[in-house]
Amino acid sequence: MTLKVSDIGEKELVRYIIANSKYITPDDTAITEFSSTNIISTCDMLIQSRHFPKNISYFDMGFKAVTVNVSDLAAMGAEPLGFLLAIALPKDLTIDSFKEIIDGVLKACEYYHIPLIGGDTNEASEIIITGTALGLTDKPLMKDTYNKGDLIAITGSIGLAALGFELDSLDNIYSKKALNPKARINEGLVLKDFATSATDITDGLASELYEIKKDNFGFMIYEDMLNITEEFKSLSCNLNLDYLDLILHVGEDFELLFTISKDNLEKLPIDCLVIGEVTDSDVVELTLENGFVERIKNKGYEHYVSE
Amino acid sequence: MTLKVSDIGEKELVRYIIANSKYITPDDTAITEFSSTNIISTCDMLIQSRHFPKNISYFDMGFKAVTVNVSDLAAMGAEPLGFLLAIALPKDLTIDSFKEIIDGVLKACEYYHIPLIGGDTNEASEIIITGTALGLTDKPLMKDTYNKGDLIAITGSIGLAALGFELDSLDNIYSKKALNPKARINEGLVLKDFATSATDITDGLASELYEIKKDNFGFMIYEDMLNITEEFKSLSCNLNLDYLDLILHVGEDFELLFTISKDNLEKLPIDCLVIGEVTDSDVVELTLENGFVERIKNKGYEHYVSE
Repeated sequence: MTLKVSDIGEKELVRYIIANSKYITPDDTAITEFSSTNIISTCDMLIQSRHFPKNISYFDMGFKAVTVNVSDLAAMGAEPLGFLLAIALPKDLTIDSFKEIIDGVLKACEYYHIPLIGGDTNEASEIIITGTALGLTDKPLMKDTYNKGDLIAITGSIGLAALGFELDSLDNIYSKKALNPKARINEGLVLKDFATSATDITDGLASELYEIKKDNFGFMIYEDMLNITEEFKSLSCNLNLDYLDLILHVGEDFELLFTISKDNLEKLPIDCLVIGEVTDSDVVELTLENGFVERIKNKGYEHYVSE
Repeated sequence: MTLKVSDIGEKELVRYIIANSKYITPDDTAITEFSSTNIISTCDMLIQSRHFPKNISYFDMGFKAVTVNVSDLAAMGAEPLGFLLAIALPKDLTIDSFKEIIDGVLKACEYYHIPLIGGDTNEASEIIITGTALGLTDKPLMKDTYNKGDLIAITGSIGLAALGFELDSLDNIYSKKALNPKARINEGLVLKDFATSATDITDGLASELYEIKKDNFGFMIYEDMLNITEEFKSLSCNLNLDYLDLILHVGEDFELLFTISKDNLEKLPIDCLVIGEVTDSDVVELTLENGFVERIKNKGYEHYVSE
């Protein structure tokens, strides 16, 4: 039986690529030392039928294509330098819709202070956007350079986008987060000088915790520190969804997950939510509201894996 | 009637993007001044059903994805710095085919001395590869900085890939060029110090000449300097194809088209084919073998345009 990519999943494919390339640093972005600093580069491809909710506007598609890439710069504490836009469009797309996508891209570039510097246009059967973001930093903020005893924090509440994808209405904080999330670029620039590590939450908190986990280190997250509102719980319940599943295993909030020493937390000049701590347990766990401790499953959004 | 992207064509879409972005230099790549040099960046998306001949191997797909991007670095006279690979795969693609694509990418990166430094993996209904190439140069070689009286030259014969796409056999110089063209990265690095302008030939010589044409300048190309072999003419004839059309209006050879002063040509340490000169005629013309002069049509490969 011939193995297919869906048999082994995205993470294994990435492992093959990394195993055969000696120049890839497996962090949120590529890091290229240059002069007395580092060029930070990252790319992300968004495919209409897979990455965009059905009710998203063309403008928000364009905006999000920038956001997902700038979020990786934020995770490295990088200063934005430039954005490249490779876009493929179906030939029966209207000019107005095309212009809305571009306007979304340009608005996002203005919002993040990242100039649109180049790109490529193509034809395809659906909208496909690959963005490349370039940045600079003298001190890249890696994803696994935390220490035992560090606190774990996030730059804002998570799970909102996950709930938003399930709602029909567009006019609420969850849907707005799902359709138009924002990268935490300014927070990243501050965290560079305070945090011990950082990554951005794209595939869910659980997924990111397992991404950054090193041998002999563990994470303890506390449900009652996640700032889960009664409204969130009740909306999830009404939809027959597990609110913890939405918070841990979906993602798309683009908040930064970072670790920080207690001392530095006191001096940190940005808002954040402390949600747990780095331990030596070698496992990833959640202390529920009722006091019980459970293992967090390594489950997040992964391409190819058969349902 | 609502206008569609196929009504206006790729060049118009690009014009909209450029008109609304003050940071785009419309040359082969983006140019970002940094330190005492320039970061060169470019991206190109290849879509399986549109950019790859049906008989191309998975290995050659991967190799070409690097070539098309490195070719833009070559056109700027840039030193390669790094390559990012965003790739989408159908879920029923075999692991072996996936590995062949990656091996092609890695082989090309080794060939061009450009490290693979990062990327992204996704699922799509067909293979889609967006490559981003980064480079450095203290003196970017622009595409339209030629002078009247400059000679026009190319780094090698053109039209071979175009003929190759039409042939069934794989074992000939034309098919090899169609399936596995090479970017002229070393030539670009040399030309940086000798040429007055350069671009790479992707959509056909005619298309590139019109791309680089400025007001009050013209180009005269000479058919008998294009090095068109009898074999090329007879193979084209056998296929009922116009050999000049193959040479001028298809592309995919990835040779560099450049301009150079007569003095510098004498000192140029690489092989090239001088094919014409820069004039003040304000038109783009070809002197045929029989002495007649005709206008070269502005026709090359363009996405979206309805047949």
